[in-house]
Amino acid sequence: MFEVTVSDHIMVAHSLRGAVFGPAQQLHGATYVVEASFSRVRLDKDGIVVDIGRAGEVLHAVLADLTYRNLDQIESLAELNTTTEVLCREIADRLAVRIRDGSLGVVPADLSRIRVTLRENPSAWASYERTP
Amino acid sequence: MFEVTVSDHIMVAHSLRGAVFGPAQQLHGATYVVEASFSRVRLDKDGIVVDIGRAGEVLHAVLADLTYRNLDQIESLAELNTTTEVLCREIADRLAVRIRDGSLGVVPADLSRIRVTLRENPSAWASYERTP
Amino acid sequence: MFEVTVSDHIMVAHSLRGAVFGPAQQLHGATYVVEASFSRVRLDKDGIVVDIGRAGEVLHAVLADLTYRNLDQIESLAELNTTTEVLCREIADRLAVRIRDGSLGVVPADLSRIRVTLRENPSAWASYERTP
Amino acid sequence: MFEVTVSDHIMVAHSLRGAVFGPAQQLHGATYVVEASFSRVRLDKDGIVVDIGRAGEVLHAVLADLTYRNLDQIESLAELNTTTEVLCREIADRLAVRIRDGSLGVVPADLSRIRVTLRENPSAWASYERTP
Amino acid sequence: MFEVTVSDHIMVAHSLRGAVFGPAQQLHGATYVVEASFSRVRLDKDGIVVDIGRAGEVLHAVLADLTYRNLDQIESLAELNTTTEVLCREIADRLAVRIRDGSLGVVPADLSRIRVTLRENPSAWASYERTP
Amino acid sequence: MFEVTVSDHIMVAHSLRGAVFGPAQQLHGATYVVEASFSRVRLDKDGIVVDIGRAGEVLHAVLADLTYRNLDQIESLAELNTTTEVLCREIADRLAVRIRDGSLGVVPADLSRIRVTLRENPSAWASYERTP
Repeated sequence: MFEVTVSDHIMVAHSLRGAVFGPAQQLHGATYVVEASFSRVRLDKDGIVVDIGRAGEVLHAVLADLTYRNLDQIESLAELNTTTEVLCREIADRLAVRIRDGSLGVVPADLSRIRVTLRENPSAWASYERTP
Repeated sequence: MFEVTVSDHIMVAHSLRGAVFGPAQQLHGATYVVEASFSRVRLDKDGIVVDIGRAGEVLHAVLADLTYRNLDQIESLAELNTTTEVLCREIADRLAVRIRDGSLGVVPADLSRIRVTLRENPSAWASYERTP
Repeated sequence: MFEVTVSDHIMVAHSLRGAVFGPAQQLHGATYVVEASFSRVRLDKDGIVVDIGRAGEVLHAVLADLTYRNLDQIESLAELNTTTEVLCREIADRLAVRIRDGSLGVVPADLSRIRVTLRENPSAWASYERTP
Repeated sequence: MFEVTVSDHIMVAHSLRGAVFGPAQQLHGATYVVEASFSRVRLDKDGIVVDIGRAGEVLHAVLADLTYRNLDQIESLAELNTTTEVLCREIADRLAVRIRDGSLGVVPADLSRIRVTLRENPSAWASYERTP
Repeated sequence: MFEVTVSDHIMVAHSLRGAVFGPAQQLHGATYVVEASFSRVRLDKDGIVVDIGRAGEVLHAVLADLTYRNLDQIESLAELNTTTEVLCREIADRLAVRIRDGSLGVVPADLSRIRVTLRENPSAWASYERTP
Repeated sequence: MFEVTVSDHIMVAHSLRGAVFGPAQQLHGATYVVEASFSRVRLDKDGIVVDIGRAGEVLHAVLADLTYRNLDQIESLAELNTTTEVLCREIADRLAVRIRDGSLGVVPADLSRIRVTLRENPSAWASYERTP
């Protein structure tokens, strides 16, 4: 099994809904370092899982819709409680759309897994994995 | 599958038993950076695996019994050879106790996996994973 | 010359004023990893610049007034454009107050320099240094 | 399940074959930080997966054949397109040979998995895992 | 004194001239993580040293002439022994040209120092500092 | 001004003397990541400050006398309170001896500064600088 990971980041404001979040219920913010991983059982004819350059561009395009924003005011996220875990899933789902539309240069059947990790500070991070 | 990780550290002295350890048979020490990961198939109603703040506190409480100590003189570790691997398991087992007693705010059935990683220096680390 | 550094972080929302900031004029956020450094020509009788534990507590106390907040709504920052550079200076100035009031366990004359570094993402950071 | 990882690095020149690689078709180079992980269901009598010191030496020996070289001119790699993914597999396969010849102090049946990760820059890395 | 740093990287092949370099006399390669720092005594009216976004673009433009290349075949470097130290100076000098031509949005008199750091692997790096 | 840094680590046990150290008065331990920096106004004829390979070997030799030991029982440290700051100075002084005896391949007059940094955990480190 092979896996390729590319990394980028977003800088966003948001607030969380639920007493469990304590002070994070207030509007605050985060730099999320975002790692997107793509897994594949066999390499393609060029010897790669996906083109790392293209993967970085696709990830950057997905993140461009989120960065420098207040997530509380993004319509497509309105029904979500934007915890780190939920953002991992959201970004993974958006990457899956880009795979299906051909942006990544592979078809879903080529890949066995997508995983997205968000690092919110030096001592806390989360990840989500799904099939493509 | 979702996973949340929190990180902390301990600074301990210890010695290892067995010729394989060479100079590490002498009393020496380590800063272990400790990462505790919790996995869950579905998020709870707040959109989280566990409360990251609470997970950090539980990990800190578990590590408080070990840090600034000589592990060779901790009674509950007396029968163990405190290799990095064994310490990973010991800390994972102690976290599992805290999950069962409700400290983490989830029940064991909510989680699918606990993993503990100890980084002992920039070029060596170990991990252990178990069911909760 | 000796220097001791302790590190912590804040997670804040804010917006910047000025066309130069482009999309960062929108309300967004950041995890700032904050490093506070203290310099001293000679060590004290215990062989230290400052007590690292106490320095960590003082830094944490200074940051507690900022973290999980929208900086745009903190009265004491109202007149500032909270760029990374300005936040470095603000935190350094607040640390200097804590040194003068004895919280750090040293007097200003003991120290030759304070420096504060804020890392806003993996590829950008800023610092400010002043006399204590 | 236990896992032990050791890390080292190589500094190599190479070029990639295929239009997908764009400017990386030119002769260029990389520092690859190489992480080799070994997994085991049960620890041995000393409480370890493998001897971390010995694992570091075996990894270093495997990398000694590659570092400070132009990979395009290494005969044993002549048929390979030395992408990060392919290099992961190549190094994992060479480690597997060293396990079979006894260099690591364990037999293949002791281990459940080998994984090799190569970090080529701060925002891109790849890994490959296989049975020993 | 304020300082702002932006970071990027290059992936290059090269060889070094001189017996002192041992195996690094062979054609090999490196990922250099490049940090460019700009210092200033007083902030400008926007509260910044330089625009971090613009600094990142200027650094990227300077590095675009070097990355994915064999440094031994770049005409403008022909007379240099491209050690890490020499590359630090070369990149700092090229940044200074961009400051003088206005690309960074500041004039040389605004800045008190430029510093360039190149990290060649996890255990070795070099830096060079000059006036702008 | 040029600076070259090499990095290594030690894993030691020790205890600190003085009420200020609280629980660190107990025998405990640390992994110290050690960075040794050498500064020089002009490069030598090969275009270097010092040979990075040789600097790494000299640092490793200095650290070999300390690692895997209990610092409380090393005779040459008997009169020291081995705080992070004191260890920085001790290692810098030992490096200075190696420079004077020619081990580094430069004479003291070639260098303008030596600096040693010890990182004791992810949120605390110290450094000491002196003339060679």
